Amino acid sequence: MKIKYELINQDKKARRGLLHTNHGTVETPMFMPVGTLANVKMLTPEELKEVGSGIILSNTYHLWLRPGEDVIKKAGGLHKFMHYDGPILTDSGGFQVFSLAKNKKKDITEEGVHFKSHIDGKALFLTPEKSMEIQNKLDSDIAMSFDECIPYPVTYDYAKASTERTLRWAKRGKDAFNNENQSLFGIVQGSSYPDLREYSAKKTVEMGFDGYAIGGTSVGEDKETMYKMVDDAIKFLPEDKPRYLMGVGEPEDLLEGIERGVDMFDCVLPTRLARHANAFTETGKINLKNAKYKEDFAPISESCDCYTCKHYTKAYLRHLFTAKEGLGGRLLSIHNIRFLIKLMEDAREAITNQNFAEYKKQFLEKYKN
Amino acid sequence: MKIKYELINQDKKARRGLLHTNHGTVETPMFMPVGTLANVKMLTPEELKEVGSGIILSNTYHLWLRPGEDVIKKAGGLHKFMHYDGPILTDSGGFQVFSLAKNKKKDITEEGVHFKSHIDGKALFLTPEKSMEIQNKLDSDIAMSFDECIPYPVTYDYAKASTERTLRWAKRGKDAFNNENQSLFGIVQGSSYPDLREYSAKKTVEMGFDGYAIGGTSVGEDKETMYKMVDDAIKFLPEDKPRYLMGVGEPEDLLEGIERGVDMFDCVLPTRLARHANAFTETGKINLKNAKYKEDFAPISESCDCYTCKHYTKAYLRHLFTAKEGLGGRLLSIHNIRFLIKLMEDAREAITNQNFAEYKKQFLEKYKN
Repeated sequence: MKIKYELINQDKKARRGLLHTNHGTVETPMFMPVGTLANVKMLTPEELKEVGSGIILSNTYHLWLRPGEDVIKKAGGLHKFMHYDGPILTDSGGFQVFSLAKNKKKDITEEGVHFKSHIDGKALFLTPEKSMEIQNKLDSDIAMSFDECIPYPVTYDYAKASTERTLRWAKRGKDAFNNENQSLFGIVQGSSYPDLREYSAKKTVEMGFDGYAIGGTSVGEDKETMYKMVDDAIKFLPEDKPRYLMGVGEPEDLLEGIERGVDMFDCVLPTRLARHANAFTETGKINLKNAKYKEDFAPISESCDCYTCKHYTKAYLRHLFTAKEGLGGRLLSIHNIRFLIKLMEDAREAITNQNFAEYKKQFLEKYKN
Repeated sequence: MKIKYELINQDKKARRGLLHTNHGTVETPMFMPVGTLANVKMLTPEELKEVGSGIILSNTYHLWLRPGEDVIKKAGGLHKFMHYDGPILTDSGGFQVFSLAKNKKKDITEEGVHFKSHIDGKALFLTPEKSMEIQNKLDSDIAMSFDECIPYPVTYDYAKASTERTLRWAKRGKDAFNNENQSLFGIVQGSSYPDLREYSAKKTVEMGFDGYAIGGTSVGEDKETMYKMVDDAIKFLPEDKPRYLMGVGEPEDLLEGIERGVDMFDCVLPTRLARHANAFTETGKINLKNAKYKEDFAPISESCDCYTCKHYTKAYLRHLFTAKEGLGGRLLSIHNIRFLIKLMEDAREAITNQNFAEYKKQFLEKYKN
């Protein structure tokens, strides 16, 4: 069965909805924690459930390299392999080819991308068909089309040629796609050029996907440019399909995205910050290694309902980070993910109450980065 | 309140009992997981409870250096600081002085031990009084006397002089001890010399402690020598107090210890092995990084009831270790600790059933290292 998006409430462009999947129904807008290598670093599926996580994302490129998609297929698919019975989205590998390829060298041809493994430098070749084959074997709930994540800034000519190739890749991927229990999302590219975003969106929608992502953001552009990329693409996306803004996880960006009608986000930010002792709080990020927390026997946030805030103090977490104890990153990952999930819960409630703009304003007045 | 040992069953010298503490009653013989820096690496207190763990051990030397005993005292003691409401035993720092002191250099005087921090090389001075002061502030359920952990092998003269000094240190520590909610154990030294073990045991018991440890084992001696050290000491220890064999965690050593009448053991082994992908199984240790587990979709042990064996395969764990994902060490720590705790549960049942010798024989026939 393919996923189904159900629109529940709308507050101007912001939308509240339900996403029905083969692994349960989840609420949108939602933030998806990233489980790169078939696990959200340090955490169990039960812990993700406890913080209210809906869909998680896992990375096709990484799983292709280790342990290999065939191992996961033999295990019965990604859900079974990693003991996760909620919905999973896999990306296409496109972004990692551009961000992780050894020495950032790659050779983009019409056929696909030649590049070298970030692990051992081995020559690799990823095509739309190969990406689909891997994702079909992983058996995630949602697969993503293989695209070129265009760097920023680029010339109009580069952006146009790349965007057109990504459309051809999307078509090839769709044709090769072969898993009836899996949904496939198209990805809108076009860099910062409004007419290319429009062109890419319309052509992608024409092909008919189960959902649409806005790609090529969070690649170095300033925030206003990113928001405009979303504006320029989202108005051409159908109302009855979910919209996904890729690689975005800063609280302000999530709220800006929701305001524009985005339903789904993903980012490594909460877990990566956690490993470096950075915690989200209502007033902005704090670093728990700071000496001022040495005897601070209050939780990270008095109002947070996560396991970590219920049971541990900043002084204890600081101690764990100072002594390089892995439990620190684990506990803080729980908190940081919960923080973003709670932000989504509050945003959904605000949409239902028709006061999203006010909610966003109040949140951002307190939250300083 | 001081702890109280209650003898329940005896099968020859092996004893089954209960240890009543201010943080609950636990069963003996027991294995105590080690939480060096106020956490059992990667695990939460809830997870320790789930594997049936009784007492955990934490290290005075490490906590003295980071975060410092005063921080923990201000937090309300070690239990509150680390969110652990079960019983905690703290060692005296004596063992770490000898194993961790920078460049292994130390200067043992009658007053105490001069040595350098393993973190920053700073000059440190630990005395029996200081060890008690730190442990009193940590407010563990059981504190340990400050002793010299004698290396092996040593001359009779060295062992005799050291053992006598440890007795003087035990007396000084006992006199300085000042926490009525905390119990204090004496430590029997004497190296491999039976008359020194007898002398040390008798003199330590004369002073009257709440329990007795056998120290100076697992310092390089062969197993037969270690078992003899236990034999030579334990016969002089009172029946109504718990006996603790320090730093021992290999399954065969635990069973040999129990057979000789030991009630408590501790070791970093299960968590350290786990971080290196080594798993306990009924037939011996296995290393999960081994290529033969790549497509092994069975749990580490079909008969194990731990969270990890219930939900994850060897193939998945191998993947986590190969990809250097911290969740691997976490999941395997749960299994390895559960393995030793279950060994203790089975040993207790065998004692009640008066067939401990047979149980031990059958276990060791299967378990090959």
